[in-house]
Amino acid sequence: MNIWRINVRKQSCEISPVPLTWEGLGGRGLIARILVDEVPGNCEPLGRYNKLILTPGFLVGYGLSSCDRISIGGKSPLTQGVKEANAGGSTGLKLVMLGIRALILEDMPEGSGWWVLRLSKDGAQFHRADELLGKGVNETAQLLLNKYGNSIASALIGPAGEMGLASAGIQNLDKDNVPSRIAARGGLGAVMGSKRLKAIVIDSSGGEKPPIVDWEAFKIARKRFTEALVNHPQTATYRDYGTAAMAHMCNAFGALPTRNFSSGQFEDVEEISGEHMRNLLLERGGESKTTHACMVGCSIRCSNVFGGPDGKSIVSPLEYETIGLMGSNLGISSLDTVARLNQKANDLGLDSIELGAALGVAAEAGLMSFGDGQRALALVDEISQGTPLGRLLGSGATITGKVLNVQHIPAVKGQAMSAYEPRAIKGTGVTYATSPQGADHTSGLTIRAKINHLDPKGQVDASRNAQYNAAGYDTLGVCLFAGFGFAAAPDTLKDLLNAIYNQQADLGILQQLGKKTLLLEREFNIKAGLTKEQDRLPEWMTLEALPPTQAVFDVPDEEMDKIFD
Amino acid sequence: MNIWRINVRKQSCEISPVPLTWEGLGGRGLIARILVDEVPGNCEPLGRYNKLILTPGFLVGYGLSSCDRISIGGKSPLTQGVKEANAGGSTGLKLVMLGIRALILEDMPEGSGWWVLRLSKDGAQFHRADELLGKGVNETAQLLLNKYGNSIASALIGPAGEMGLASAGIQNLDKDNVPSRIAARGGLGAVMGSKRLKAIVIDSSGGEKPPIVDWEAFKIARKRFTEALVNHPQTATYRDYGTAAMAHMCNAFGALPTRNFSSGQFEDVEEISGEHMRNLLLERGGESKTTHACMVGCSIRCSNVFGGPDGKSIVSPLEYETIGLMGSNLGISSLDTVARLNQKANDLGLDSIELGAALGVAAEAGLMSFGDGQRALALVDEISQGTPLGRLLGSGATITGKVLNVQHIPAVKGQAMSAYEPRAIKGTGVTYATSPQGADHTSGLTIRAKINHLDPKGQVDASRNAQYNAAGYDTLGVCLFAGFGFAAAPDTLKDLLNAIYNQQADLGILQQLGKKTLLLEREFNIKAGLTKEQDRLPEWMTLEALPPTQAVFDVPDEEMDKIFD
Repeated sequence: MNIWRINVRKQSCEISPVPLTWEGLGGRGLIARILVDEVPGNCEPLGRYNKLILTPGFLVGYGLSSCDRISIGGKSPLTQGVKEANAGGSTGLKLVMLGIRALILEDMPEGSGWWVLRLSKDGAQFHRADELLGKGVNETAQLLLNKYGNSIASALIGPAGEMGLASAGIQNLDKDNVPSRIAARGGLGAVMGSKRLKAIVIDSSGGEKPPIVDWEAFKIARKRFTEALVNHPQTATYRDYGTAAMAHMCNAFGALPTRNFSSGQFEDVEEISGEHMRNLLLERGGESKTTHACMVGCSIRCSNVFGGPDGKSIVSPLEYETIGLMGSNLGISSLDTVARLNQKANDLGLDSIELGAALGVAAEAGLMSFGDGQRALALVDEISQGTPLGRLLGSGATITGKVLNVQHIPAVKGQAMSAYEPRAIKGTGVTYATSPQGADHTSGLTIRAKINHLDPKGQVDASRNAQYNAAGYDTLGVCLFAGFGFAAAPDTLKDLLNAIYNQQADLGILQQLGKKTLLLEREFNIKAGLTKEQDRLPEWMTLEALPPTQAVFDVPDEEMDKIFD
Repeated sequence: MNIWRINVRKQSCEISPVPLTWEGLGGRGLIARILVDEVPGNCEPLGRYNKLILTPGFLVGYGLSSCDRISIGGKSPLTQGVKEANAGGSTGLKLVMLGIRALILEDMPEGSGWWVLRLSKDGAQFHRADELLGKGVNETAQLLLNKYGNSIASALIGPAGEMGLASAGIQNLDKDNVPSRIAARGGLGAVMGSKRLKAIVIDSSGGEKPPIVDWEAFKIARKRFTEALVNHPQTATYRDYGTAAMAHMCNAFGALPTRNFSSGQFEDVEEISGEHMRNLLLERGGESKTTHACMVGCSIRCSNVFGGPDGKSIVSPLEYETIGLMGSNLGISSLDTVARLNQKANDLGLDSIELGAALGVAAEAGLMSFGDGQRALALVDEISQGTPLGRLLGSGATITGKVLNVQHIPAVKGQAMSAYEPRAIKGTGVTYATSPQGADHTSGLTIRAKINHLDPKGQVDASRNAQYNAAGYDTLGVCLFAGFGFAAAPDTLKDLLNAIYNQQADLGILQQLGKKTLLLEREFNIKAGLTKEQDRLPEWMTLEALPPTQAVFDVPDEEMDKIFD
């Protein structure tokens, strides 16, 4: 495996072996390592010193169910700190097939051109992208597939990334060549746009799967992992209902963000629930799918295809996070409307969480009425049109709130919270506050921890454990839902690593990787000028009680400050 | 002298003696002390824990020329750090007449009402302000004068403060009851708006001048100070040309911000110069004045009244900073247009520096052509209308640039630079970078230091010296131009303090006060989560050469980091 270092100014590519100190890492952990080693902490995120890094997780490419995720990272224009966002699809796998441990994109181009970067066993080529400019993600993907063939992988941006919007993400083709797998959070699409890359195309023809040191041991471990995963009850839940299964669960906890985080329960939760969605899609048929895999060989298949009344696909997938932020958070109870909002966000290449939160803030400011789906759709169209209002909304919830003078901004370090109310799930509140990534449920969700979520006690421990696990999985390229399998058969993780790499990993390897990653990320954030004063939930969440639990966020700062000591 | 502590929620007023540790301070130094002692560093600037503090400088009220300035402070919504902005006019003097060393406004009101706070020897009263809402600064001031009489002082906000815009300032009546003296920078008008105070009215009837311990010694020192000030050659320059005298000087140094800081010289500098303005105003006559005092007894009288072709006042005063930021920085060479832009900004209660910088950024983004004064005026009207674009521009240059994807943002800590290009006046660049206040020329202008402004050597020393002096004068309530008098007769400052207060001040008192103030401000900023990584000029100014000097900012970070050690 090699490091491919691309200078977008010189349009050069340097291929070198993985440095000794970067070994044993991939994905999120390797991004943190590279940022600490190579990127000035206080650099301008959209300037020449920032780097965009794509690195497959350390377990990518071995045909393990749900373990082929791609991590994308750099300094975030949204949080001004470390950023890693990961996604399914085929990007990770195809990079591994070319022997790429990390792709590092450096500098900025001169002049005004935009480019497609094509990677193949012949190296890197830059092709003019002018005909793709301004085009949505879906059309762009189709044009790329037409030009480069159906067996490519691709990471690409939409108009949001071109516009440099701080909530622009990077879309990746899924196994069916739909550009639906977004490395969504923190504005990495704007970083890619600042390097004037519309798309990265990976043609892995002639590439090969990575070697495995002990094939027999690997097969045994893989079988045990797969069985543990397939037999886990959560796997069936996610297969049948997708992540939308969380809607009822969160609502029951009083943690479903509703009308700009002013309530934790939504009266129309049934309408936006996973159960309702499943029934709807089964009834509608056509292109609708309740069960769908984003990566080759995934045995969970939590994805779906959301078809409209005519059975034609509106968006794929429709996830709980989007339902929470663009549904209940906007007072919208129509899944069709949420799906259309999601489709527009995807085609723009925007993080639907950040956009949903920004729209919630805008609604509180009076730019739309809660529940007015048509107005919400029209506001998203402002982004497509590049109006000042559209650009504002696309810049995220925090800037939107500042400009519109809304005090209720549900964000930490400039990044919007996802669909778990931190006053009602306090361990996740600790994660939002203390994660180097900014507010992000995938950095350490505690909703399944066996604690009273309303009690401030024990939340820091729960968050730390969840954060280490999450950072560990993100370093390995393991989907968090595959974690159910590793949790049920914990020794299989070390067995797999030892079989593949001849490591001496022990049972603690997941938490070790997670801890190492988090410490590196915090090191980068300190270099970037972030301090513990930014490790806080918004002041209003410590003061204003959340109906119906009447909870405020009351985990003491002093406890949170010691979380990683 | 007492501390008046007003709780705007309870509408209560508590009057107490000055605490021992606050003694010997006023103005900027006292604000820093109070912030460190009472305001949580990481509080929400527009939330209930921030405080708005008004405190006259320590020399206010003694009839000294140009020494009656009012300091207003709190945590800044623009920089997220310490903020003090000071102004002339009558607010400082009348507070002293009521024996108020500091007015501390705490908490936030419940409900939705807006208020006028009236201070008199009978204490504090809250009056409903509903009929003033949405009104410009000028109309508001007139209504206040009608209601409360012509002998009041007042600090008030315009629509910008009501809207919570981060570049809203607080206007103060001048000696002629014109609300032209703005504590402009850092968004303190939004802080006042968050406490839902449209105006503070000070009726000092029955109040008295503060005591002087040694009247004879005071008279001698005052006489010597006044003579030194009156006889200083700069005093004559400021009297005749106002601050606009700087236009030619800055242009000669290649330091006149032009077209969003893309050049340091403006081809039409003559049109916007102090010399041209003087001729124009003398020619136009009517209400025009080339020489005008903002405070009672000022012997400099650097202010002016800018009359239009018909001799009717457009704005008072028209200052160099506004000319630089709204003239050359926008490519506008008509002083009439600049005056109209300034008038609109003043009536909105907006910082004209921050607004000019935001418009420059917007012009680079294509929202106006450089030089198009009509379009610039129309953009400012968007703010009056409260449109999303208007609110964006009123939120300052940094947020405007982020939303519009402009990399050339001339700001530090979120606050726009004033009209001295830091690449060409590098000592002032050091001040912009390291001042706890964010970019601000009044925190330590080095343009008169006897050094080569293009040489990176010696700039840190020059900045430190200027910053200590500025912070000292701001603590005393001394106009920076009165500093010419104290510089020519340095012993008069200690003599005055010793005569008034029976202190044992020595010749170093100015720098001692300045250093103490700066250390307190830095202490607050650390509590607020700011670090040395924010003590930097924008990255692009270290990379891109400024015509015509082709200078980049190259004072080493390591030197800047030690400036206050």
